[in-house]
Amino acid sequence: MRKDPIVGRWVIISAERGRRPSEFLPEEIRVKGGFCPLCEGNEDKTPPEVFAIRENGSQPNSTGWKLRVVPNKFPALRVEGELNREGEGLYDKMNGVGAHEVVIETPNHGETLSMLPIERLVMVLTTYRERIMDLTRDQRLRHILVFKNHGAAAGASLEHSHSQIIALPVVPKRVSEEIDGAKAYYEYKDRCVFCDIIRQEMEYKARIIGENREAIALAPFASRFPFETWILPKDHSAHFHRTQRPQFQDVASLLSDVLRKLDSTLPRSPYNFMLHTNHTNEQDEASYHWHVEIIPKLTKVAGFEWGTGFYINPTPPEEAAKYLREAPLQGDRD
Amino acid sequence: MRKDPIVGRWVIISAERGRRPSEFLPEEIRVKGGFCPLCEGNEDKTPPEVFAIRENGSQPNSTGWKLRVVPNKFPALRVEGELNREGEGLYDKMNGVGAHEVVIETPNHGETLSMLPIERLVMVLTTYRERIMDLTRDQRLRHILVFKNHGAAAGASLEHSHSQIIALPVVPKRVSEEIDGAKAYYEYKDRCVFCDIIRQEMEYKARIIGENREAIALAPFASRFPFETWILPKDHSAHFHRTQRPQFQDVASLLSDVLRKLDSTLPRSPYNFMLHTNHTNEQDEASYHWHVEIIPKLTKVAGFEWGTGFYINPTPPEEAAKYLREAPLQGDRD
Repeated sequence: MRKDPIVGRWVIISAERGRRPSEFLPEEIRVKGGFCPLCEGNEDKTPPEVFAIRENGSQPNSTGWKLRVVPNKFPALRVEGELNREGEGLYDKMNGVGAHEVVIETPNHGETLSMLPIERLVMVLTTYRERIMDLTRDQRLRHILVFKNHGAAAGASLEHSHSQIIALPVVPKRVSEEIDGAKAYYEYKDRCVFCDIIRQEMEYKARIIGENREAIALAPFASRFPFETWILPKDHSAHFHRTQRPQFQDVASLLSDVLRKLDSTLPRSPYNFMLHTNHTNEQDEASYHWHVEIIPKLTKVAGFEWGTGFYINPTPPEEAAKYLREAPLQGDRD
Repeated sequence: MRKDPIVGRWVIISAERGRRPSEFLPEEIRVKGGFCPLCEGNEDKTPPEVFAIRENGSQPNSTGWKLRVVPNKFPALRVEGELNREGEGLYDKMNGVGAHEVVIETPNHGETLSMLPIERLVMVLTTYRERIMDLTRDQRLRHILVFKNHGAAAGASLEHSHSQIIALPVVPKRVSEEIDGAKAYYEYKDRCVFCDIIRQEMEYKARIIGENREAIALAPFASRFPFETWILPKDHSAHFHRTQRPQFQDVASLLSDVLRKLDSTLPRSPYNFMLHTNHTNEQDEASYHWHVEIIPKLTKVAGFEWGTGFYINPTPPEEAAKYLREAPLQGDRD
């Protein structure tokens, strides 16, 4: 059993059940087909874009884009309205004020994130930064989630490669747990727990999946899921939206490597990725460290683990890291 | 947006996306077939039983049983060995000492929990109690989880109806959050938060799914999932293993109703249920209240919600409760 040093969550690493990549039955990746509102040429089928990277001279909401951000047509939250915090007996509620946007990562239907050239991945990251900076201006919003569901079993309802941004009037519990856990460590040690993890992992080596000058990819010591992968900037940085181009360049390059290695190790596997960043609280500058968590969706023990927060992982992270380190880069463009 | 009054988790109830039972695509319930080690006659294919309810005169580990408890053949934890708590740089780990048992709820392969007569369901509940009381004697163990995965998409790897008991040397985070949340409410109000919820729901009525003398079934105000259902004893009771027969009788009867109503409302849906109880800490007698949570596995937005603890529920609990209240009892035995 291993304990996550940030949030204090115990997981069981079940080496005896040791599951190798080939032993996972691939879960459903295929999303139902039909008309695609995210494809180039169908710009009028989405709400008007709030951001785009376009060829010179092309008009908003027309063809000629490399990347578009549009409001979600069926948003979980809306920007209009008041929060109206109120009680209902012992319960608390408020209106779902916030934003729910879709980042269309490519105009081409069949192109996945792992197929994009590095400079296009950098565009995706800088777009996240632009949107976070814009949404942060709305004082009602307390947290911004950036995440991606790839494949049906990971929750994607559209096949066309996209990620989502949700801006919330509250900080979700798991997010504040991580921020508070890192702060508690900092108060005790006067060091960032993520920086300490990076130092220890670079010395130990067995859980490192890849690295370059600015970024590192590793299988966390207390991985909850088989082949769970974190990508972190090596230099301390609390705020994703303050990150500069050289770091994004290296994070994008490592993200591309990891996605292509996952493609070759676990062919056609659905996955989720989430950006963990702290963009509201300036006080946590020293203790927090932004990172990306990638979780292939391979096991189905969902409900129980949801309910208890207790995870059993059949693949030790050292083995997962070894498989990924040695994996070829799927679809290498060299 | 609604806040859970016990753990403080916010969820989005997305009424605009309002999903009716018929709009959920049923997830995979079928578990791969073949030889079944849990069937009557195959007693030698499981580890020796640790508990059984048998016909008079029948021998342990032979036929003639109504219910058996056996150690899991591929356990996540083992009873043997020392905890050996130790560090590894900044990380903490310990041996996976604990117990992992399988409760075989019926000798008959095709029989599901919803098909069992009430007195057989009472047997299942009293068996949980027996095992909890026995495992509680082991001073190394801090928490005991009782849960059931029904159907492949809910994580079941065997079709034959069974539940699982895991005894752990640590209290899982989600469990201690609930216990601590209830305690904080008690310290503030001098009342049990669950008792307050029951009172408010009995007055409001719209979220009640069913009730009898001793038990109540309701759709929680801040339901994370469509058709999430909690069953609670009406009288305050912190400890499941101290519960007496009349209460078990009524809880079993209501559990049977709920499972049969789920069967008729959401045919062939996988589900998880978890027993939430506090069996170790005598101090929380006044603030905690045991209950059963039933979660049909209907949506797939798993990874994102795992990562953030942030839930979007497309079916308002008032609507879910109405559907279930009005649903016929599938397979009524009258």
